[in-house]
Amino acid sequence: MVASPPSFELLGTDPESSARRGVLHTGHGAVPTPAFMPVGTQGTVKGCTIDLLRQTGTTMLLGNTYHLALRPGADVVAELGGLHRFMGWDGPILTDSGGFQIFSLERLCRVTDQAVEFRSHVDGSRLALSPERAIALQEALGSDVAMVLDHVVALPCPGDEVRAACERTIAWAARCRGVASRRDQLLFAIVQGGLEPDLRAWCARELVTLDFAGYAVGGLSVGETAEEMYRMVEVTCPWLPADRPRYLMGVGRPEDILEAVRRGIDLFDCVLPTRNGRNALAFTATGPLRLRNARHSRDPRPLDPRCSCPACRHSRAYLHHLFRAGEMLGPMLLTLHNLTYYQALMASIRTAIEAGEYVEFSRQQLAQLRPQEG
Amino acid sequence: MVASPPSFELLGTDPESSARRGVLHTGHGAVPTPAFMPVGTQGTVKGCTIDLLRQTGTTMLLGNTYHLALRPGADVVAELGGLHRFMGWDGPILTDSGGFQIFSLERLCRVTDQAVEFRSHVDGSRLALSPERAIALQEALGSDVAMVLDHVVALPCPGDEVRAACERTIAWAARCRGVASRRDQLLFAIVQGGLEPDLRAWCARELVTLDFAGYAVGGLSVGETAEEMYRMVEVTCPWLPADRPRYLMGVGRPEDILEAVRRGIDLFDCVLPTRNGRNALAFTATGPLRLRNARHSRDPRPLDPRCSCPACRHSRAYLHHLFRAGEMLGPMLLTLHNLTYYQALMASIRTAIEAGEYVEFSRQQLAQLRPQEG
Repeated sequence: MVASPPSFELLGTDPESSARRGVLHTGHGAVPTPAFMPVGTQGTVKGCTIDLLRQTGTTMLLGNTYHLALRPGADVVAELGGLHRFMGWDGPILTDSGGFQIFSLERLCRVTDQAVEFRSHVDGSRLALSPERAIALQEALGSDVAMVLDHVVALPCPGDEVRAACERTIAWAARCRGVASRRDQLLFAIVQGGLEPDLRAWCARELVTLDFAGYAVGGLSVGETAEEMYRMVEVTCPWLPADRPRYLMGVGRPEDILEAVRRGIDLFDCVLPTRNGRNALAFTATGPLRLRNARHSRDPRPLDPRCSCPACRHSRAYLHHLFRAGEMLGPMLLTLHNLTYYQALMASIRTAIEAGEYVEFSRQQLAQLRPQEG
Repeated sequence: MVASPPSFELLGTDPESSARRGVLHTGHGAVPTPAFMPVGTQGTVKGCTIDLLRQTGTTMLLGNTYHLALRPGADVVAELGGLHRFMGWDGPILTDSGGFQIFSLERLCRVTDQAVEFRSHVDGSRLALSPERAIALQEALGSDVAMVLDHVVALPCPGDEVRAACERTIAWAARCRGVASRRDQLLFAIVQGGLEPDLRAWCARELVTLDFAGYAVGGLSVGETAEEMYRMVEVTCPWLPADRPRYLMGVGRPEDILEAVRRGIDLFDCVLPTRNGRNALAFTATGPLRLRNARHSRDPRPLDPRCSCPACRHSRAYLHHLFRAGEMLGPMLLTLHNLTYYQALMASIRTAIEAGEYVEFSRQQLAQLRPQEG
């Protein structure tokens, strides 16, 4: 067990909400918060070269321990110099622990107090993931932030199952804390508790006594409504120490980010900008555009005239053509556009908090985000 | 019928071979020759943003009239400002005429003296491509170099069929010449004649009397041996005027380019660097590498330590992982690497010709290109 270095600097808090402006310091650089991490599941953010990724304004990435452990193997990544060198990204990286795959690969895994046993989705082989193993894998990958192994359940879920998963999550967090040994790696705990405010609060208090470098709100974006998710953020954040970063895992849509920042969240990750981009959906300040729609076929306008991304040097008609013709460049360009949109949103969120105007800013943004047709 | 402006500048010829160093001047910039054009079939070089494409050293692209006419339609491209603006490429573009699709889509088309009738591979609709229509489409696309419609036959082919296709090609070239009206578009004729030296020479002489801005050697790389192809280049080039560029269509491997330059070719296009890149094959100075091969799985070396492309900032192990994991970034990076390799080869070819050392240079290059295992 190592003492966490002071890694988070709280620069200020919005006067009318719980929105926070901060900086997360890591061995691979500083991350201004609130921040959004694109997801690089298998050692690459799908469709982006490292240079293009950096041009979107991205400062920090997420990598998936479960996927990298199966292929190419954490030992291979370690042998090749760690995840940063392997994928060529010299900025901060956070790795998840594999806990989310308990939920997403439910039929392929079995959970006991000791560990999660996965049957590999790649080749059917077995992978036993204990808290100790989750830390060892992340230490081999060499991420800047490691996550404890947690037990995520699908919602809705019977209360006693939520409680059991929550207890297991706390016990596993303690075991992770006990074996973590890299001084250059921050360890974040994960608050579970389903949609039960009491369980959320209890889980948060228990984890805080263990003293982690940061705290995540986990087990959300798994079937509940947006309002239920916002409510869980709202009941959890007050129990977390102000001087540690707060990370809402797997969230979300632009409106979710705006709502969660208002309730005190500092860090986000989500596949939406990249996955939706590959599926021809472009995020814009006035809602999403579906580029496969025939109404774009002769439209000479860019997605957003104020956007500086490579997609916005082309017409909507060209982007429409690329998707109709099945060209890789369509998914590539919309991925870049959506990440640029998300990072610009985060930058404007930070500016609004600095100006003490976050509530009014988020109200305006949310009003604009009503979906367009098409 | 418009007079062709002087568009090709012959800077010098190798003292010991027919290799030529020149410049092709177009409305969108000058192209040092010998030059290689990547293929952008559907208005994009697959997997490359425009910036990344330019970084490979590419100066001129090829677009496919047949494909663009079917989708999105030449009228749509024209309405959106022409092919340059549509795809965001402000350098020179050459468009083919659709003649090659007579060969490649043989079962979907019927050829008469009047026109080729295609059944669209996209939606089954009919497209009648006459010489006049081929020019109209290319004028709508607004390419810098247009190609006449020619009749390509699969080889081997009975002599009388080759002769008939050759006669038709000459007649169609004259009809194209008669209707071409854009003063900012160069028109190149295409020498056919299968593997018959006499037919090749006759076709070349007939086309030269019609006075085109450039001449292509067509109907090769369609089933014949490399030696037969080199022989056809050798018997055709002497009949072409020294002050016009010579374009070997659809060729080829690095060794083919080295051999054809020695025989007097100035321009090339081929899908090999891009298509093979997507299929995990990397070109290197010492022959191709197959990145799916397990022997690369822990190899920390780049493909080529002297290469400056985005792929060569990664290890072979990482590239191997990307292909094994089915990640888009694998095809993207190997496409960029292969195009960078081809453009660096062309640059070194030009330097060797300038130095009057082309024969020795090409001999050394060919000796190195023996395939590696793997």
